[in-house]
Amino acid sequence: MLTLDHLNGLSQADFTQALDGTYEHSPWIAEAAWAQRPFVSLGALKHAMVTVLAQAGVEAQLRLIRAHPELAGKAMVSKSLTAESTNEQGKAGLTDCTPAEFAHIQQLNADYNARFGFPFILAVRGPRGLGLNRHEIIATFERRLRHPVDIERAEALRNIHRIAEIRLNDKFGVEPTLGNLVWDWAEKLAQHSDVDGALTVTYLTDAHRACAQRLAHGMREDCGFDEVSIDAVGNVVGIYHGSDPSAPRLLTGSHYDTVRNGGKYDGRLGILVAMACVRELHRAGRRLPHGLEVIGFAEEEGQRYKATFLGSSAVTGHFDSTWLDQTDADGITMRQAMQHAGLCVDDIGKVARDPTRYLGFVEVHIEQGPVLSELDLPLGIVRSINGSVRYTGEVIGMASHAGTTPMDRRRDAAVAVAELALYVERRAASVPDVVGTIGMLAVPAGSINVVPGRCAFSLDLRATTNAARDALADDVRAELARICERRGLQFTLEETMRASAAPSAPAWQARWEAAVAALGLPLHRMPSGAGHDAMKLHEVMPQAMLFVRGLNAGISHNPLESSTNDDIDLSVRAFLHLLEHLA
Amino acid sequence: MLTLDHLNGLSQADFTQALDGTYEHSPWIAEAAWAQRPFVSLGALKHAMVTVLAQAGVEAQLRLIRAHPELAGKAMVSKSLTAESTNEQGKAGLTDCTPAEFAHIQQLNADYNARFGFPFILAVRGPRGLGLNRHEIIATFERRLRHPVDIERAEALRNIHRIAEIRLNDKFGVEPTLGNLVWDWAEKLAQHSDVDGALTVTYLTDAHRACAQRLAHGMREDCGFDEVSIDAVGNVVGIYHGSDPSAPRLLTGSHYDTVRNGGKYDGRLGILVAMACVRELHRAGRRLPHGLEVIGFAEEEGQRYKATFLGSSAVTGHFDSTWLDQTDADGITMRQAMQHAGLCVDDIGKVARDPTRYLGFVEVHIEQGPVLSELDLPLGIVRSINGSVRYTGEVIGMASHAGTTPMDRRRDAAVAVAELALYVERRAASVPDVVGTIGMLAVPAGSINVVPGRCAFSLDLRATTNAARDALADDVRAELARICERRGLQFTLEETMRASAAPSAPAWQARWEAAVAALGLPLHRMPSGAGHDAMKLHEVMPQAMLFVRGLNAGISHNPLESSTNDDIDLSVRAFLHLLEHLA
Repeated sequence: MLTLDHLNGLSQADFTQALDGTYEHSPWIAEAAWAQRPFVSLGALKHAMVTVLAQAGVEAQLRLIRAHPELAGKAMVSKSLTAESTNEQGKAGLTDCTPAEFAHIQQLNADYNARFGFPFILAVRGPRGLGLNRHEIIATFERRLRHPVDIERAEALRNIHRIAEIRLNDKFGVEPTLGNLVWDWAEKLAQHSDVDGALTVTYLTDAHRACAQRLAHGMREDCGFDEVSIDAVGNVVGIYHGSDPSAPRLLTGSHYDTVRNGGKYDGRLGILVAMACVRELHRAGRRLPHGLEVIGFAEEEGQRYKATFLGSSAVTGHFDSTWLDQTDADGITMRQAMQHAGLCVDDIGKVARDPTRYLGFVEVHIEQGPVLSELDLPLGIVRSINGSVRYTGEVIGMASHAGTTPMDRRRDAAVAVAELALYVERRAASVPDVVGTIGMLAVPAGSINVVPGRCAFSLDLRATTNAARDALADDVRAELARICERRGLQFTLEETMRASAAPSAPAWQARWEAAVAALGLPLHRMPSGAGHDAMKLHEVMPQAMLFVRGLNAGISHNPLESSTNDDIDLSVRAFLHLLEHLA
Repeated sequence: MLTLDHLNGLSQADFTQALDGTYEHSPWIAEAAWAQRPFVSLGALKHAMVTVLAQAGVEAQLRLIRAHPELAGKAMVSKSLTAESTNEQGKAGLTDCTPAEFAHIQQLNADYNARFGFPFILAVRGPRGLGLNRHEIIATFERRLRHPVDIERAEALRNIHRIAEIRLNDKFGVEPTLGNLVWDWAEKLAQHSDVDGALTVTYLTDAHRACAQRLAHGMREDCGFDEVSIDAVGNVVGIYHGSDPSAPRLLTGSHYDTVRNGGKYDGRLGILVAMACVRELHRAGRRLPHGLEVIGFAEEEGQRYKATFLGSSAVTGHFDSTWLDQTDADGITMRQAMQHAGLCVDDIGKVARDPTRYLGFVEVHIEQGPVLSELDLPLGIVRSINGSVRYTGEVIGMASHAGTTPMDRRRDAAVAVAELALYVERRAASVPDVVGTIGMLAVPAGSINVVPGRCAFSLDLRATTNAARDALADDVRAELARICERRGLQFTLEETMRASAAPSAPAWQARWEAAVAALGLPLHRMPSGAGHDAMKLHEVMPQAMLFVRGLNAGISHNPLESSTNDDIDLSVRAFLHLLEHLA
C-alpha cells in the first residue's frame, strides 16, 4: 500500500511509477503533478492531477479519452467487461447482458463514436464504488449520446477522474467509510416514497412520516444522540449534548421532504452528514464544549401545500397559521393532515427557538448546480444565498395574418418577449453571480401563419444581495416598458414570489473555509442560486453553508441527482473539522 | 340632390357649404379638399377628403374625433340614438336596449374615455348601410376597448370616413346597388355552414354542396349565364358566351369553401363579383367579343383534407390522385366523400383546361391584410402573389436550475430562438414586401425556475419572388446555425411547405390598373402575402388579381372579416371596366 509520506519523498520517476495506471496509458499526468509535492491529503493529490489535465488543453484531453478501450468492444470479447481495467470488472454490470442488450450497446457505441469521435467512458464502479448495473450503464449511455460535444467531452473527463479516484483509493488502501455510511443511509431513506418508481416524499404522507421515524431511529440507535423527538410540525430533532449541556448549541440540519420525482440528496444530505458526525463523536466517546442540535426539517419544497420552508419557519417562529387552511390536491387541509399525523397543532408556537441559545446555523447541501462539477472540486463554500424575485408576465399585441401584414405594420408580442429575453440574459451576465431566466415562454394558441398577438412568459431573477436583485428587477421592468412603448404593445408583469438574500456570516464562512483548507482542497467561494433552510434561519441567527459537488452536471430535482461516496466523505470530515474548531 | 358636375363648378365657399355635415363640425376638410377639383367620381371626392385628414396631423384628427357625440350619452337622452346624426338613427340599433345593456354601454363608454381620451365612434349604419344591431354594437365596443391607443385612433378615423361616405351617398342620391347585390349574396351563401353559430364550409359537406347548388342556381337564374355545371371535383362552372362562342375565354373565379369559423368574403367575393358582372351584361343584353368563364372553386383552404387548392389544381391538370386516399377526422376518404356527393372520380382528369383556349385568369379577392385599410384605399392591384416556405424547428440545449446555473454556463434554448426571432424580423424588414414570422413558440413543459432545455418554433417566410424567398430562407438557416454554434446548441429545422411566387402578368396587371384609374381612385400596387387560386392558374396561364379592402384592419379567417357595400361596388365596376376593355 502506498502512503502519502512515502509518495511525497519519491523522485519524479519513482513517483510516476508509483502512480502508474491511475490514468490510462498516461503517466505524463502523474509526472507533471509531481511538482506540486508535498500532498497533505489524498484529496490534494487527486486535485493536483485534475489540475494537470485541465491545463494540458483539449488535444491532450482527447488523447487521454482515446487511450481508453471501448465499452462495447471489450464487452463483446469477454462478455464480462467494463471500461475500467480487468480487476474492476467483477464489480460492474455488463456481465449478464442479453444478446439484445449486447446489440443495443454495440449500436450505441457506433452512434457515440460517429457523433463524438472518441470512445464512451463511464466510471462503471459508480458513485458508491460498488458498480453500476447494466440498466444504469445503458441508460447513461443513451442519455450522454444526446449531449452537445463539448459537454460530453467534459463528462468523459470527469468519468476518467472518477476512475482515477477509485484506483488511487485502491492503491492507498483508503475507503471513504464515512461517505459510504451516509450514501447507504440516503439509499435506505429513499426506499420510502409517495409513489412507486420515483422518489416523492411530500409533507405528512405515509412515506414522509416513515422517513421521520427512520431519521429519529437512526439518530437514537445508530448515532448516539442524547435526545431525539419529532416536533409539532414534523421536524425530527436530535440533540448531542456538549460537555456543558447548558452552553449555547450549534444548530444544523436540512429538509427531508422532496420534490416530485426528486433526488436522494437534496436536503437529506445535510441531515445525514451531521448524523454521521455525531456518530463519530459518540463512538469516540467525545463531548464538545457546545451542544449540537440536528434538525431534519419536515418541509421545504412546497409540494403538497403552497407553504414552503414550513419546517424552518416554525423553528424561527415565523410559522404562518393561515397555512393550516391550505388544501392539497385532494382537498385535505394542512390542519387535517397534521391531526392525521398525530401532531399537536396547538404546540406549533413552541417549536420557535430562542436564538440567544444558539451559536449559529450551518447547513451542508448538495450544490444543485454545475459549478463544482465543472471546476472538478468536491466542496464549495457558500458566500450568500441569493435573493430572488419571480414574475409571470404577458405581452399583448395584435394577432394578424403572417403573409399579409407587412413587417412595419405588426404588433408582434413574441418578438417583444424575444427582445426582453436577450436583455435579461445580457443584463444578468453583466454583474457577477446574478442570474435571470425566462423559463416559461409560449404564444398561446399560436399558428404557423399568424403574427403572435400574445406571448406569455415567466421571469426568475436572483442576486447575491437584495440591492443587486432589485436593481436587476427595476432594469428589466423598465426595459420591458421601453420595448412595449416602442412597439406599441401592452404588457402585464405580476410578482409571484420574493425572497431576501442571505449572505453568510463571515465568522461561520471562515470556519467552513478552514475546514476545507484542512482537507488539502482549494477554496471556492460561491453564491447559492437555490433557496435553502439556512435562508430562514438567517432571519434569526448567523448562518453559513457548505456545498457538495453533484454528479451529472449537478442536476437536481431529478432522479439523476447524485454524489460520490468520496465527496460525501470529504463533507463529513469538513463538518467534523468545523465542530472541533468552534472555539 | 348634389351632382359631381355641379360640385366641381362651385366656389370654395359654396363647395364647403354643399358638403356641410359630411364630417362632424369640421367644414375645413371639405374646404381643403376643394383644391383637388375636378372630381371624376364620388370615390375620388371621398378619397380627397380622406387625404386632407391624413395630412392634417394627429392633433387635427383628435379634434375631429372629439367633435363627435358620445354613443352612451346620446343613447341615455333619447333611448334611440347612435353616433351618427338624427336622420340616421332609425337604421341603427341602440333603440331597444335593456336597462342592463344601457348600464353596460355607459360603463364601456367611461372605460373607453378613460383609456383613450376621446369618444367611441362607430359607423352604426355598418358595412351594408342598413344598421348594426345592438349586440353587434356592444361587441364592437368591447373589442375596440382592448386596442392599443394608436390603432384605436386610426379605427375611429376609419369609422368617421365610413360615416362620411354614407352621408355623401345620401347627398348625391347614390346607392351602391351592385355592392349591395354582392353583399346580400354573400350573406345568403353564409347561411350554409357545417356547424351552428359559425361559418365553416369544408369540402363536400352538406353545407358545401348546398353552397355549390346556390351558386349554380344564382348563375343560371339570377345572372343569365349560358352554361352552368358542377364538375367532377365540385367546382361550379358558369359560362357567359361572347359574341363569338369559339373565341378564347377569360377565366375568373375563386373558392367557396371556408376555413373553420371563417369569414363570408374570403374566396366567395371573387365568384360573386364576377356573377354580378355577368348579370349586368345579361340585363343589358350585351355580349363581349370573348366569353367569360366563372369558376367557384370547390376547395382551396385544406381544412377537411390536407390537399389545398384542390379545385384549381384540377383545372390546371395538377390534381394529385393520391389525395383521394386522404382521410378526414372521421376516417372518410376523399374518394368516399366524392362518391357520396355524386361526383365522378373517373372524370377528374377531364376537368383540366387547355390553356390555349383562355386569354388568362383574373381573380378578385378581399385583401386579408391591413394595408388598404391603413391607406384608406378601397382597391389595390396585386403585383405578385408571394412565394413562401414554412418550417417547424426546435433548438435543443440543456435544461438546468435557473438559480444555480451561472449565466456563462447555460445552454438556454429559448434565448437562442429569441435571437433568431429578432434576426428574422430585422432581415425580413430589410427587403421590401418580404415577411418572416415565428408564429408558434413554446418551451415545452417549461418551469419558472428551469433554464429552457428545448424551445420549439415555427417559421413562415414569404417574398415576392422565389429568389428573394430563398435568399431569406438561406440567411435565416445560416443565422440559426451561427447562433447555435456560438451557444453550443443543436437544432432541427424541417421544411413543411413551399410555394412558388406568382408575379402578375404585366398586361393583365395593367388592365386592373386602368380599371381602378377609371374609377378615379389612386393606384396602389402591392404583393399578396396570402396564397390564392391564381397561384395555381399561374402555372398554366397569365394571371392578375384585384384586392378589395377589408374592414377591421383587414382581419380574415375570422368572423370579423368584412367589407363595405361601397368597396364591393367599386370592385364590380372595376371588373366591368376590365371586361369592356379587353381588346
